[in-house]
Amino acid sequence: MNPQQQPQPPKMPIPGVRHLVAVGSGKGGVGKTTVAVNLSLALAALGRKVGLLDADVYGPNVPLMMGVNEPPRATGDRIHPLDKFGVKLMSMGFLNPGDKPLVWRGPMLHSVIQQFLRKVEWGELDYLIIDLPPGTGDVALSLIQTAPLSGAIVVTTPSDVSLEDARKAVNMFGQVRVPILGLVENMSFLVAPGSGERIDVFGHGGGKRTAEQMNVPFLGELALDPEVRIGGDTGHPVTARPEGDAHAKPFHELARRMEEQCQAAQSAGPTITVED
Amino acid sequence: MNPQQQPQPPKMPIPGVRHLVAVGSGKGGVGKTTVAVNLSLALAALGRKVGLLDADVYGPNVPLMMGVNEPPRATGDRIHPLDKFGVKLMSMGFLNPGDKPLVWRGPMLHSVIQQFLRKVEWGELDYLIIDLPPGTGDVALSLIQTAPLSGAIVVTTPSDVSLEDARKAVNMFGQVRVPILGLVENMSFLVAPGSGERIDVFGHGGGKRTAEQMNVPFLGELALDPEVRIGGDTGHPVTARPEGDAHAKPFHELARRMEEQCQAAQSAGPTITVED
Repeated sequence: MNPQQQPQPPKMPIPGVRHLVAVGSGKGGVGKTTVAVNLSLALAALGRKVGLLDADVYGPNVPLMMGVNEPPRATGDRIHPLDKFGVKLMSMGFLNPGDKPLVWRGPMLHSVIQQFLRKVEWGELDYLIIDLPPGTGDVALSLIQTAPLSGAIVVTTPSDVSLEDARKAVNMFGQVRVPILGLVENMSFLVAPGSGERIDVFGHGGGKRTAEQMNVPFLGELALDPEVRIGGDTGHPVTARPEGDAHAKPFHELARRMEEQCQAAQSAGPTITVED
Repeated sequence: MNPQQQPQPPKMPIPGVRHLVAVGSGKGGVGKTTVAVNLSLALAALGRKVGLLDADVYGPNVPLMMGVNEPPRATGDRIHPLDKFGVKLMSMGFLNPGDKPLVWRGPMLHSVIQQFLRKVEWGELDYLIIDLPPGTGDVALSLIQTAPLSGAIVVTTPSDVSLEDARKAVNMFGQVRVPILGLVENMSFLVAPGSGERIDVFGHGGGKRTAEQMNVPFLGELALDPEVRIGGDTGHPVTARPEGDAHAKPFHELARRMEEQCQAAQSAGPTITVED
């Protein structure tokens, strides 16, 4: 029941990858993939080398949101990631395109995820962002127990239902000693495009409050912005737009805050780092 | 890979339960539990005897939405469901309250779900509504392969990302020959409370279009209604309000349409029914 009591498998580093950051959520549909995609592009815009691994094996939405879906090339037993908007990509969606449901069970998925981590030619990366499946199920748990994560971001909406599940996700990472880089409140509020009326569709402020209660950093609020949703649905993330775009700005700020927390977690952690 | 090729375990009926209806979604956070809860209360308002089984073991939100959370009583090896708003309830949340993540793996969960179906004193029910976990993972698959389902409802939002996953869920039910009672488009549109401006936050119309393309019934649109969300967050579903409430009306209509489809599926199906 308590993963800390189980023997932990060794967390082998991934050669060339500096920071491995998981983006998770307790509940699905809170915008976890939207955050993972736009955070990746925002980090790339800061000049970082970025990879994005879509580990949401049952509902891999990264291909749709990034507007790319083709089988990756392989050389021997090495898989070459795709490249879009300057970000290296791997997703179950590239291997199982279309509407067929994936009905593989836990152990098989565990093996696929390990291959995505270990057999993909990620090359030199500052950040490999992992879009986890929602919740605290088999795949999420296997991954965070075996991957050498620098930290995790937990995405929630301000609704109590979503916050209830977010607390579980924060605790799951805590149990396996993965530092929480921060909580993000997504779909924080909506600004009506016509009237400018501000609507707290899912409530407001619960993310910040929960972060304070759980003593984890709060990375900020992201509006329920129809432009962001359209960007995802059409494969043109708002963060791919020219610099200064108002819809992309919150994600660029998120990327900067995440970098700060990532560095703070690294200097606080027990890992011995050799700077070159 | 294809569940049809596997030997199917026998689907034992649940004594006293007339119709077993699953509410599923490809993606989480589309309002599956909101639909399951309000549909259950709307069926009860029609005079039906209703039970609601929260099978979303990793994120059981039914206790919060129904405003009840206490350990159920047991007599011998029989568990007594809770009762709220005239609906019988069972949820993993009653057994694992609070913020502890459930990190059980597939086989253990399968056994818990079977106990929820078989060892709970559901009594005489017209409908036992099952709130499935989102997606097409282990728990959902085990359940739909072993429970004698009359049919399934698939909830989606109009966003392309959600529709992509909804198609997978429809296909999953098809593969194990569970009739689709219909697709529901939730969060269809938002009416700004102040200005009355209508906002298609997640797009609009994709649910109906997808239902037509997949040749399954369309059960209707539900607005992204902050009152409905507040009802869920505070444990007072809108369908518990006095008759004629405008926010509850779409759910009462949904209940009527679902009953029609349930009867149609029954008369079309191969089951021999003995009417008393």
